[in-house]
Amino acid sequence: MTTTVTTTSYDPRTGQVLGEARSSTTAEVDQALDLATRCAAAVADASPAERAVWLHTLADHLEEPATAHELIALADRETALGRVRLTAELARAAGQLRFYAKVGDEGSWLGATLDASTAMRPALARVEQPLGPVAVFGASNFPFAFGVLGNDTASAIAAGCPVVAKAHPAHPLLSERLGEVAVAALDAAGAPLGAFSLVAGFDAGTALVVSRHTAAVAFTGSQRGGLALWRLANERDVVIPVFAEMGTVNPVVVTPGGATRMSEVAAGFAASFTMGTGQFCTKPGLLLVPAGSGASAAVRAVLERSARPGWLLTGQMAAEAHDGIARLVRAGGQVVAQVPGPEQGWSAPTTLLEVPAAGLTGGSQLLEECFGPVALVAEYADAAELATVLGALPGALAASVMSCGPDDPDAAAAVRALAPRVGRVAVDDWPTGVAVDWAQQHGGPWPATSAPASTSVGAAALCRFTRPVAYQGVPDHALPPALQADNPWGLTRRVAGVLEVGP
Amino acid sequence: MTTTVTTTSYDPRTGQVLGEARSSTTAEVDQALDLATRCAAAVADASPAERAVWLHTLADHLEEPATAHELIALADRETALGRVRLTAELARAAGQLRFYAKVGDEGSWLGATLDASTAMRPALARVEQPLGPVAVFGASNFPFAFGVLGNDTASAIAAGCPVVAKAHPAHPLLSERLGEVAVAALDAAGAPLGAFSLVAGFDAGTALVVSRHTAAVAFTGSQRGGLALWRLANERDVVIPVFAEMGTVNPVVVTPGGATRMSEVAAGFAASFTMGTGQFCTKPGLLLVPAGSGASAAVRAVLERSARPGWLLTGQMAAEAHDGIARLVRAGGQVVAQVPGPEQGWSAPTTLLEVPAAGLTGGSQLLEECFGPVALVAEYADAAELATVLGALPGALAASVMSCGPDDPDAAAAVRALAPRVGRVAVDDWPTGVAVDWAQQHGGPWPATSAPASTSVGAAALCRFTRPVAYQGVPDHALPPALQADNPWGLTRRVAGVLEVGP
Repeated sequence: MTTTVTTTSYDPRTGQVLGEARSSTTAEVDQALDLATRCAAAVADASPAERAVWLHTLADHLEEPATAHELIALADRETALGRVRLTAELARAAGQLRFYAKVGDEGSWLGATLDASTAMRPALARVEQPLGPVAVFGASNFPFAFGVLGNDTASAIAAGCPVVAKAHPAHPLLSERLGEVAVAALDAAGAPLGAFSLVAGFDAGTALVVSRHTAAVAFTGSQRGGLALWRLANERDVVIPVFAEMGTVNPVVVTPGGATRMSEVAAGFAASFTMGTGQFCTKPGLLLVPAGSGASAAVRAVLERSARPGWLLTGQMAAEAHDGIARLVRAGGQVVAQVPGPEQGWSAPTTLLEVPAAGLTGGSQLLEECFGPVALVAEYADAAELATVLGALPGALAASVMSCGPDDPDAAAAVRALAPRVGRVAVDDWPTGVAVDWAQQHGGPWPATSAPASTSVGAAALCRFTRPVAYQGVPDHALPPALQADNPWGLTRRVAGVLEVGP
Repeated sequence: MTTTVTTTSYDPRTGQVLGEARSSTTAEVDQALDLATRCAAAVADASPAERAVWLHTLADHLEEPATAHELIALADRETALGRVRLTAELARAAGQLRFYAKVGDEGSWLGATLDASTAMRPALARVEQPLGPVAVFGASNFPFAFGVLGNDTASAIAAGCPVVAKAHPAHPLLSERLGEVAVAALDAAGAPLGAFSLVAGFDAGTALVVSRHTAAVAFTGSQRGGLALWRLANERDVVIPVFAEMGTVNPVVVTPGGATRMSEVAAGFAASFTMGTGQFCTKPGLLLVPAGSGASAAVRAVLERSARPGWLLTGQMAAEAHDGIARLVRAGGQVVAQVPGPEQGWSAPTTLLEVPAAGLTGGSQLLEECFGPVALVAEYADAAELATVLGALPGALAASVMSCGPDDPDAAAAVRALAPRVGRVAVDDWPTGVAVDWAQQHGGPWPATSAPASTSVGAAALCRFTRPVAYQGVPDHALPPALQADNPWGLTRRVAGVLEVGP
């Protein structure tokens, strides 16, 4: 293996080098996978309650004041996302770990199902079982909540799978430090050695995906990166699932009624698409407004009044954002507002472009995500043109509808048109926030994710890392605990077709 | 499109031509997909109870005595599976349609989940939604239960998806007739035009998979066929899921205790691997027995006493079974019993081969499925060698353990070793029967299926054809019925994290 020996850490505010993070050697990657494989049975056999203790301990270690202070400072240096946001994000990451612990312990995700014996066969019982070691590729833009200890790692461990996470090159020093915190916390909590490991470097990532020890891959990031891993996994002898959550152009439909409160909509749109310097996978990238509603001017006014320039995470992202703006202009976009980024460091101008609705057709470059503080406005002439545009949109993670209230008849129609194309549709709320809760769906039709039936946030995130097994005529003591007659885990189970809610 | 204008129907008992079934033209395939697309919203919007009526009506039409008589006779002519078996299979197919109707109507598969609003966001609700038109490629070996009106079609319609099924070339006239029955039954039941269509011919199958109208593919058959469709779907601009249930070598472990009742085990094994002339995807293809247990001789004795030669479905399958036996011999198998097939028509000799356990390693040709009445016996020296062999087995649909009763300590160990490698593990029961019930899992790790988290039989079969969507702040009247406040479908739902069992 030819490895880059180190990954350089940079300060996005200046472009200056902060330090070097060592890449894993081949032997280190092998060891991480070997440890994960060896402990997989122990992680799977631990009860959900035991795994919940591990996750709670990890959350507590993250929030230990000195550790949190250090992590937030390090994250801010490497990402320039700001301490306020990063403080909230670390709290969110800890909350997520506790949420997945709770969901794991509640146990419905196990789908325990028992059918009595019949004249034709002995008793049949079915339960979800952990897949084994999961390779996690965290995101650049949420170093805590979607990073090496984010939703993917938390939900994989809750589901009984060891994790080998790859450090993100946009925050290599933070990744390394988070890995140390996790290994120490899990050890303190009594989790088996290997339940979590961190590896670093591009080659380490490739090695994780092709290794016969890896059972699944979770990824958050760009389409280019996600599809590359998906292709690599599909070339294996034993193909494994890749849950790649990728960037999309998330549309917002403003109904004619919604357009009557355009100044409010414009302010919300500007705030949402520039949040985190536009580095949200749920960024509203396209505002569809009724013709003549004055949306462009309204958003421009907000941006010129209140846009607060920020930095982009990497030099490459800054270059790609500039290229993306140029591409949108070539494809027919007209710049209607542009606020320069900070003078120093890595940035792109906050940019609003107006595009013709007729140009929003399948395959148009206008519908390719431009990561950063960049968004489009398009005017639709009437309901028919809106329907045509919505019909041409590729799959997206989220969409919003801005209405004039619950009785807006056009809002219901827009929800109905958007639902088949997205993972989540919001009314009179912006798509940017992704709540971690039972009903969340953070996914969407291809190419929003490589596995549109899955979610990377919310209770169902655990279900990515399991596979059902049916047991036929198996003596009670040889069944997994979830299926044993005395229901030792107190699960809600389906018995003879009827749900029996656990104690 | 260059089409074979017809598919020839043959009598396997003689190899003689029975007739010709017309292949679909390009225009006919387009029309089927167009109808499916146009009616997709209506099929999705129908309540589960309405769709249950459609499926019940289809079951009733299949079982109408004159129709059933005609279908069974036609199936027997094209498949030579015998009227007794086919009569039972038609009843099973009708029962399946009613089972999926019941599961659909019960509604837990919708996963309706409601989270109340919080300070951070409005109410969030999540429900599974039908994907849209599903292309169904039925199996050769179960013309009713896994054919064009089998589990895939029944579960897809129950889940709210229109189906375009492809006629199977091993029973083209039956497929055509079943298609007519289905179209008439669904029309009589009030289902929208296009809820089910049949197309025929190889090119029609390719067209289904590449069509932008197709949302998912379900396939039952060989690895070669399943993987070809999977690759084709992965090359699309918008990749769609392919649920390919493929053939495997299903292992049976006889424990030392189980070997004490070898004559019973041998009789069961012989009956199971020759059932349906070995044309079961759950055929036990490999019997692992303790060294010195005399299994080969015992099975040979049963075969020589009672093997009832039958026919194989197609000339190609017969040729491949002969090739497969030769391949197994070349790979180190020794023929210990061979009973010739019928003199006329398409068949292969019922064949038992003994193979060295040491030869059962990853990639060995001994571990490639040989479809037909062919099975292997391998002796293991001790528990360590058994563990090594089980560790090398590729993913399979099912496995069995033959023990000396519930207290056999080796049985629990074998279950534990087999569970990670199969979709279903049975103790003291043969794998051949696949009960249609809530707890069934008919799938297994790659390459048993292309989607190991899914099942093609049982209640969870519906879940292949849905995708979740979350609704955030959406007014009650604009939500899907499954999520509306007054719960019009009477579903069991998760509300604020707690399951509320429906009325």
